[in-house]
Amino acid sequence: MNHLPDEYYMEEALKEANLAFEADEVPVGAVVVVNGKIIARGHNQVELLNDSTAHAEILALTSAYSSMGAKYLPEATLYVTLEPCMMCAGALYWGKVSRIVYGASDEKNGYQKIAQPFGPKIEIVGGVLAAECSWLIKTFFKNKR
Amino acid sequence: MNHLPDEYYMEEALKEANLAFEADEVPVGAVVVVNGKIIARGHNQVELLNDSTAHAEILALTSAYSSMGAKYLPEATLYVTLEPCMMCAGALYWGKVSRIVYGASDEKNGYQKIAQPFGPKIEIVGGVLAAECSWLIKTFFKNKR
Repeated sequence: MNHLPDEYYMEEALKEANLAFEADEVPVGAVVVVNGKIIARGHNQVELLNDSTAHAEILALTSAYSSMGAKYLPEATLYVTLEPCMMCAGALYWGKVSRIVYGASDEKNGYQKIAQPFGPKIEIVGGVLAAECSWLIKTFFKNKR
Repeated sequence: MNHLPDEYYMEEALKEANLAFEADEVPVGAVVVVNGKIIARGHNQVELLNDSTAHAEILALTSAYSSMGAKYLPEATLYVTLEPCMMCAGALYWGKVSRIVYGASDEKNGYQKIAQPFGPKIEIVGGVLAAECSWLIKTFFKNKR
């Protein structure tokens, strides 16, 4: 169990999203939490790495596997500022992450529009600091116009 | 356009799957082809990398982005010995790969059971050397019992 509220960890994911924003990447950030402790962080680096799979969740998960020396994270909660896409939902499925908390919904590319891959034991919470998470992304795309 | 038949490239993907088999990984292999040339290869390395996202397609795509210096591969065909899972289908979607050729179907984890993320311009061909691709996987799991 995490001892701090979800908002605390989402603020940390937002810090990651801000790093992406400052680097001119679509501002999405993620953290992986085990027993209340942040064990990995990631933010979108599609442009930097020139890799369209370098989403915040994938980078945070890969870092978490490395830091835990494990390819499954059944005790982990993943916090991400935007609803995961199909690819990231698939990665979370394979990683056996037991809890997924996201901020803003993604009407266009969110996995929920497409599929429900998770079993009933997986807890999914949406809408945590949604306004802040969404504002950052909207501001990013408004500046691009 | 590729100048050689799909079976030729699937044989190359099978060579990758055999490398996985020999390394005691679930034997799935992939190659990425642009203008008839193999620009990247990958095989399942979930155990070696201790990373549940290290599927053949993800590794081949990441290698292809690196070798092409591009994060999108609209001219590419990805060959893979097993129907992609949801995660890999999502990665192929983001990578804008225009043609996907797979060998064996995956009744349990294949993306087609879950979702159809690809637009009508994306060509998908299944069943190429399906018997060989499937035999390798079945043999692997039979040996595990």
